[in-house]
Order: sequence, then structure tokens, then C-alpha cells
Amino acid sequence: MMDKAINIIDKLNKFSDYWSPRIIAEMNDYQFKLAKVKGEFVWHSHKETDETFIVLEGKLTIKFRNKKVKLNEGELYIVPRGVEHKPYAKDECHIMLIEPKGIVNTGNTSSELTSNNDIWI
Amino acid sequence: MMDKAINIIDKLNKFSDYWSPRIIAEMNDYQFKLAKVKGEFVWHSHKETDETFIVLEGKLTIKFRNKKVKLNEGELYIVPRGVEHKPYAKDECHIMLIEPKGIVNTGNTSSELTSNNDIWI
Repeated sequence: MMDKAINIIDKLNKFSDYWSPRIIAEMNDYQFKLAKVKGEFVWHSHKETDETFIVLEGKLTIKFRNKKVKLNEGELYIVPRGVEHKPYAKDECHIMLIEPKGIVNTGNTSSELTSNNDIWI
Repeated sequence: MMDKAINIIDKLNKFSDYWSPRIIAEMNDYQFKLAKVKGEFVWHSHKETDETFIVLEGKLTIKFRNKKVKLNEGELYIVPRGVEHKPYAKDECHIMLIEPKGIVNTGNTSSELTSNNDIWI
């Protein structure tokens, strides 16, 4: 059981690299992750699960093969399982991801952006 | 698939009653809910699941039988499954709840505060 509440800004202040999600909490078999992103990610999908994005600071675009979705601060979007997507942020953007434990950031795509998926902060 | 991002503040502006969570999104079999709370809730537990609280505005206290946890804006806490708790907010507080679909706000406790658990906004 958690000793005290987790302050999201405090956790964001603990790292600065892009596209490398950090785990901050676990609910059942789901995890809350924070990431800082900037630039283009890679096209990928997660065939086993939906994936939730919440923008904490800045602006994020999620590109799909047939459309783009723009997220401002305080906005949430859920990418359905199996749907190819490519996050993009012109400027640095801070996001929270919620998804099942064990999900790899680049999903079905192996890339130099593939990150360790088990870093807690 | 969601047409566009969900703006959390816009959704909060759609209701004003206390202790009545509204569903804004679904990820796999989990739901994101918003609630406005003020005053004392009832002691209850959810034997089947953990429950995530994120404070969006104001301050929330989660009372446990042996301690209290205080959450400020931008803080997250996960109540473990089966653990009795009682949320409390001296002043109006806005929260996001994340938990599996179908969870009732008062868990194992029937109360006049038991809310319809399937209201989407």
C-alpha cells in the first residue's frame, strides 16, 4: 500500500530524456507512466491493448494512417488496440500513459526508440 | 475509435452534483470517471479491484482505518483492493477515478450516496 500520494510534477522533475516512459504507480495489472516527448516517434501498434494518453504539459499530436488527433494540456485520448499510430510533438511535451504492465513503447515495431519498459521512479 | 481528444475541464463543466462519478472514456475494460466531491463519503471497500484517485482541483483526504492520506492537486493515490477507505474533502474537490467497468462508488456499502455507475458525459 502506498505510503503517501504521488506528486506527478515531482516525478516529472526526476528525468529529462525523451521517449522513455517511467512507471510511477500500478493499479491491478495496469501501470501509470510518465514520459517527456519531442519530435517524431515511430509508427507502431499494440495488438493486445488500448493505450491511454493524457497531456500534462504542452501539445501532442497522435498521427493515424487516416487522420491526426491533437491533444492540448488536460486532454485525454485512447488509442484502440491494434491501430497504428505515431505520436509527434513539435516542442517538448509531458504525458501520462496508462496501459497494462509489460507494454513496450514501440509495440510491434523494433526501433532505436524502443525503451526499457520497467523503469520505476 | 474516439473522434477527438477529451478535454477534462470541459467534461467537468457538464455537471455539478457531488459524489456522482461520470464516465468519460473506456480503455479495455477500465473506465475513466470524473467526480466532484465535498464533505464526507462513507466507509467502503472494493474487494475485486484497486482504485485510482487523481486530484484535478482542490484537496482530498482518503481516510483509512489506521491512517489518512492527503492529496493535493496533481497528486495520485491507488487504494488497494479490499482496503476500507472513506474519501473526505473539506471544500469542493474535483477528481478523476480510474477503475474497472461496473464498479459501484460505495463498493460493499449500500448508502444514500450509492450512485448510478453508468452515466457517461
